[in-house]
Amino acid sequence: MSILVVGSVALDTVSTPFGEGREVLGGSATHFSVSASFWAPVRLVAVVGEDFTEAHRRPLVAHDVDLGGLVVAKGRTFRWVGKYGYDLNVANTIDTQLGVFADFKPAVPAAWRDTPVLFLANIDPDLQMSVLDQVPRPKLVAADTMNYWIDSKPEALKRLLTRVDVVLLNDAEIRQLTKQPSIVRAVAEIRSWGPSMVVVKRGEHGVLVFAEDGAFALPGFPLEDVLDPTGAGDAFAGGFLGYLAARGATRPWDARRAAVVGSVMASFQVEAFSLDRLDRLTPPEIRERYDLFRALTAFEPLP
Amino acid sequence: MSILVVGSVALDTVSTPFGEGREVLGGSATHFSVSASFWAPVRLVAVVGEDFTEAHRRPLVAHDVDLGGLVVAKGRTFRWVGKYGYDLNVANTIDTQLGVFADFKPAVPAAWRDTPVLFLANIDPDLQMSVLDQVPRPKLVAADTMNYWIDSKPEALKRLLTRVDVVLLNDAEIRQLTKQPSIVRAVAEIRSWGPSMVVVKRGEHGVLVFAEDGAFALPGFPLEDVLDPTGAGDAFAGGFLGYLAARGATRPWDARRAAVVGSVMASFQVEAFSLDRLDRLTPPEIRERYDLFRALTAFEPLP
Repeated sequence: MSILVVGSVALDTVSTPFGEGREVLGGSATHFSVSASFWAPVRLVAVVGEDFTEAHRRPLVAHDVDLGGLVVAKGRTFRWVGKYGYDLNVANTIDTQLGVFADFKPAVPAAWRDTPVLFLANIDPDLQMSVLDQVPRPKLVAADTMNYWIDSKPEALKRLLTRVDVVLLNDAEIRQLTKQPSIVRAVAEIRSWGPSMVVVKRGEHGVLVFAEDGAFALPGFPLEDVLDPTGAGDAFAGGFLGYLAARGATRPWDARRAAVVGSVMASFQVEAFSLDRLDRLTPPEIRERYDLFRALTAFEPLP
Repeated sequence: MSILVVGSVALDTVSTPFGEGREVLGGSATHFSVSASFWAPVRLVAVVGEDFTEAHRRPLVAHDVDLGGLVVAKGRTFRWVGKYGYDLNVANTIDTQLGVFADFKPAVPAAWRDTPVLFLANIDPDLQMSVLDQVPRPKLVAADTMNYWIDSKPEALKRLLTRVDVVLLNDAEIRQLTKQPSIVRAVAEIRSWGPSMVVVKRGEHGVLVFAEDGAFALPGFPLEDVLDPTGAGDAFAGGFLGYLAARGATRPWDARRAAVVGSVMASFQVEAFSLDRLDRLTPPEIRERYDLFRALTAFEPLP
């Protein structure tokens, strides 16, 4: 079952204490697409500039991501320059050059208007809504956002959430959106607005999912080395939605296995810069790490 | 099987965004003792001042903590004044008055020198070592510490660790002790010094345990309301060691169930100020929350 993603395709310059990537392929839609491609066919709606080369396009093509919605516009591709310190949970933005992304108006190709699963990556909530309007009857819709939109367009975001099944947020975003310090209470409020699943992203500390079958918590995978956390959240979303799409996106949604698959994909994503690790990832490695998550978290009832 | 704990008994004044406790019973040994008392007999070695009343003593007595090692010295009881903001993971110390604790020289009563399980709560590592010297052949020794001792007495602490089975630390302390950003590598180094179990305490994000049967990760319990995180780490240690003592402290140690029991005790500890929640806790509530941890973390293999 296909997934349509709308979001950014970018050239990132990222430095961490463990290395640097210069003008490497990045962007939320990119990371999502390659991750989800291991599970389901992916259709990408995004915009790039004239400086976006065949070499940039290669990892997406290699993973059979359908680029029928990737518009090449006059101008430069979106660029992000970021830096992480030893606390890899905090990204410091050094520079953002929107380029062609400033005028992005997502257009869903006519043949894609029946796509059953949608991922609205982190863009202006009004644009996210415009995509929903172009895909009349999806089976499953997920949305990401960020503090900038919660601050500048809270009402548009809340309107969007009434039409969304899954929203992905971190702790700070959840508290900002609800003005509520208790995550459990805040999530209950967000679910009352529409989303039946709220995914609380906690970086190296894992993920907490509130869904129809109750709360599910999964710790992060204890990796020997994390090289670059960029794209971890989008790789998670790709695995989460990819798994649900592969299972037909039918209710009851299997949010638990989906969250583990998402965490597996994110754990690989951070092991290298850009798409380097996912690019050479194999299905047996995915299955092996899923089983390692089982071994990591298993415990017996009390005697 | 009995546990001997050495640490602080204090009067805490704590404020959080959700309330305040004034001169309430606190201290590492106190929180540990009451938590462990649900699982095993506890023997307390500590010092208090002449201002320590029968009312202060009551919760310890009510939980059958053996106070045969609680010395009343001339002077005032140790006082700690702390404040938490909305990020309850960070305690801000406003004031510390050591009082009689400044001259604390732990003396283990002769009848207690065969205690099989020891908990060396967070005190000067030289004092922790002096307790070990007074208990010649324990079956299981656990130690806590803090950034202050890692900074001021790293060599004494490393000597202590050669004689310790379990060390409890948070992420920052582990990195500080090893100068190593990767927690996985840092823990491997610490285990090479002696401790076969390293417990990484992560507050609301749960716990990561490295033991003989591999890594075990447990997320924090998503509570509706956390009133006061003071004592959570010691309540965890009380449940962890209490469970192992109840099982005879024999190898192979069941670090996984012990970590869940510790997390259960810590999750109750933070629901009220001081000892208020543990004071009225019942064994069926403990068992129920253990089962809730199972429901929270369960997931199936991939189809």
